[in-house]
Amino acid sequence: MKLYGYFRSSAAYRVRIALNLKGLTVQHAPVHLLKDGGEQMQPDYLARNPQGIVPALELDDGSVITQSLAIIEYLDAMKPEPRLVPAGPVLAAKVRAVALAIACEIHPLNNLRVLDYLKGPLRHSQGDVDRWYGHWLLAGGLEPIEQMLPGDRFCFGDAPTLADCCLVPQLFNARRCKVAYDHLAKIGRAEGSCALLPAFEDAHPSRQPDAQ
Amino acid sequence: MKLYGYFRSSAAYRVRIALNLKGLTVQHAPVHLLKDGGEQMQPDYLARNPQGIVPALELDDGSVITQSLAIIEYLDAMKPEPRLVPAGPVLAAKVRAVALAIACEIHPLNNLRVLDYLKGPLRHSQGDVDRWYGHWLLAGGLEPIEQMLPGDRFCFGDAPTLADCCLVPQLFNARRCKVAYDHLAKIGRAEGSCALLPAFEDAHPSRQPDAQ
Repeated sequence: MKLYGYFRSSAAYRVRIALNLKGLTVQHAPVHLLKDGGEQMQPDYLARNPQGIVPALELDDGSVITQSLAIIEYLDAMKPEPRLVPAGPVLAAKVRAVALAIACEIHPLNNLRVLDYLKGPLRHSQGDVDRWYGHWLLAGGLEPIEQMLPGDRFCFGDAPTLADCCLVPQLFNARRCKVAYDHLAKIGRAEGSCALLPAFEDAHPSRQPDAQ
Repeated sequence: MKLYGYFRSSAAYRVRIALNLKGLTVQHAPVHLLKDGGEQMQPDYLARNPQGIVPALELDDGSVITQSLAIIEYLDAMKPEPRLVPAGPVLAAKVRAVALAIACEIHPLNNLRVLDYLKGPLRHSQGDVDRWYGHWLLAGGLEPIEQMLPGDRFCFGDAPTLADCCLVPQLFNARRCKVAYDHLAKIGRAEGSCALLPAFEDAHPSRQPDAQ
């Protein structure tokens, strides 16, 4: 399998964590989101993923799976242990809801192409963009998510799930953009537990071959 | 089960379609998103869903599941026929990817609270907001999704899936906002097939008790 990604993309980072937790090795194909107007908009990448975003997972038969959560669900079906979506339907729904709260409610509003639209066509200052970023990250995102967590060692229970695969990359972004979240104790606890696992450490953007 | 929703919320609309396809009946509890500053921000609703968004599905034991895609996956686990996420892992991933492309790439950028932020704190004109809406709906959304579809009767194959549950409400929004998408033939075909099914018709916003 080949993973098209970018070291700093938090969606690709989610998939790297999932692969590491499952002990799966893939070939990494970096797609540079900033070089030459974005390699993700070049025809050869668009043929694989018409959305022009990373990640995309190319299977050995050449078929391509896109959208980080769909990729992680696929990996969970193909190699169920350790399970990233729990077997019990209600717990599975709660894990997916936290993952989706991050993937649908925070990340889409704060990713590079949206911030570029605010700065470009809408001509906003960096200050406006920073307030936008912080608003959707905290009030619209991490603060309600804190209340969706039971307060376990990881997001749910004693082992990482799909929720942790999404949370940690989002927190990396928060730190990078200097948005403080240390008032969120349950999130902090889960983050601390993840930080002790090599699967999370090895997936960190700074550890990727395309990191600059 | 009790579904907290709003007739015009496209996320609630997705869940209504899924319930109808599975022949499941629930009690409907309307949450008026515009009245009194938004009933979704009242303490009794926030206690059920700290995100302050609809839908939320309350189970008979009182536990609550949020996020429309997590709710539909839960329904698919509890009552597998007809399957909304196919059994085959690759096809399941492709169905989920289209659902997520809508739920993560179009809807979060175009929902009411984001448009309100653009008009309020960022002081944009209705023209700016309309261009924003159209940009994320078409170039950022439906146009790449058209290329992700095989061109079947429904989004994938001869029966509706999770992808159709997400597509139809998004197209309802597009029509409402007068964004034309008739150049997207595969999307148009799937929409036409869905329109013939009572499960979709009965889930339409205009058919809900809280429709005004």
